[in-house]
Amino acid sequence: MIGIFDSGVGGMTVARAVEKLLPDYRITYFGDLARTPYGSKSPATIVEYAIQNTEFLLAQGAKLIIVACNSAASVATETLRQRFTVPLFEVITPAIDKAIIATPSGKIGVIGTVATIKSGVYDREITRRNPQLKVYSQPCPLLVPLVEEGWLDARETKMIVRRYLYPLKQKQVDTLVLGCTHYPLLKELISQRIGKKKVTLIDSSAEVAHSLKAFLETHPEIEQSLAKVGENRYYVSDVTSAAAAIAQMIFGRPIQLIKT
Amino acid sequence: MIGIFDSGVGGMTVARAVEKLLPDYRITYFGDLARTPYGSKSPATIVEYAIQNTEFLLAQGAKLIIVACNSAASVATETLRQRFTVPLFEVITPAIDKAIIATPSGKIGVIGTVATIKSGVYDREITRRNPQLKVYSQPCPLLVPLVEEGWLDARETKMIVRRYLYPLKQKQVDTLVLGCTHYPLLKELISQRIGKKKVTLIDSSAEVAHSLKAFLETHPEIEQSLAKVGENRYYVSDVTSAAAAIAQMIFGRPIQLIKT
Repeated sequence: MIGIFDSGVGGMTVARAVEKLLPDYRITYFGDLARTPYGSKSPATIVEYAIQNTEFLLAQGAKLIIVACNSAASVATETLRQRFTVPLFEVITPAIDKAIIATPSGKIGVIGTVATIKSGVYDREITRRNPQLKVYSQPCPLLVPLVEEGWLDARETKMIVRRYLYPLKQKQVDTLVLGCTHYPLLKELISQRIGKKKVTLIDSSAEVAHSLKAFLETHPEIEQSLAKVGENRYYVSDVTSAAAAIAQMIFGRPIQLIKT
Repeated sequence: MIGIFDSGVGGMTVARAVEKLLPDYRITYFGDLARTPYGSKSPATIVEYAIQNTEFLLAQGAKLIIVACNSAASVATETLRQRFTVPLFEVITPAIDKAIIATPSGKIGVIGTVATIKSGVYDREITRRNPQLKVYSQPCPLLVPLVEEGWLDARETKMIVRRYLYPLKQKQVDTLVLGCTHYPLLKELISQRIGKKKVTLIDSSAEVAHSLKAFLETHPEIEQSLAKVGENRYYVSDVTSAAAAIAQMIFGRPIQLIKT
């Protein structure tokens, strides 16, 4: 079974992408709603939570883990790889791979939470692979609360998106990484503000699903270990009405959230 | 020693008010930054956290507890009173007492987090004491993230405050309870938007300090049990730079945050 965790329900955009591209495999999801959000917390605290979440998914029978939270992926990936032996996917590397291919001018923008941007992981990894590339990062701490409030198309949201994107627009980035699993829900708005025709948006949810598919095609022993019968399960450490609404928005159908 | 807890650093407005009005008594504060915010979480989860926070403060030697978080006070006060025998103060009752006295027309507005407003505690308690009074409530989930982002005077914040306050303005409330410890930091802005001359703002931080002072004057055995020497201590379950900045904003001086 494929185990996916996130700080909340945003990571369900990853679960949805995996479900679409790889419908044969069973998914168990964990959203840490009792401690959400991670993006404003310290690296030490996020690492501790990421370890606990991985242990929970392994105990459920996960043979492969996807860290579907950019904040956790930014600061906890190395620790998780040292600590656990199962294959570990995260939302950052596939997005970086895609951004490097996508950029014509070499100017890449990255938006994310405070934890993600402060970690410097996108900048470090992109320039390590190609020192010619320029990375411009912008923390956008209000976008997660705006999505959770359901203000996807509100005038205030448009203004805040414009304000956050302004410095990246000034730098004329031609590729923009959506470095948070909530942001695909604001994709259209972000695309309009940054320049629809000129800028390619990189959605890590889709990229991680593609990367997982390629991996399974070349790793039959792992592929065979994954459960192919049963139900997908969506566990959360707290149940709130807002979470249920966002889950339904992402999947286009009601999702039963199971309290851990 | 007086124990004060909150989901984060917003409750420091209460600690500050107590420190100003009752400088002789030592305070130990706990801010649950590792699990903040509470306002978007479920009542069951908030109750669990409130019990743990109270136990922590009692273990530090608290002889009296102040629940400086409206979300926790809304849903956990009854459980805490059943479970613990120390005197328990919270930010809701003193604000209600003041609002009932302050309203000339009997139309009281309340703003707070989703958890606070959904609990219905203000409405229930105000109309229980005086069924003639009308209570109009409005959840304002974006105000806490806006304060934590430091956008105290941003145009976007003004627009969002206007949008949240619009229904209360329509109802012509003459008294407005700031039902979240973060909101005093937006007091000037809220006051301008709701109508400075016409509407009295009730800041629960100041009210709970007054209520505590009155209690200590009539309960010498409790008053004598409170520590009067030593340092005030500010514990947090996570240390973030944003928290340190807000703490400094509230106290007007740097505050040393001790990680639990």
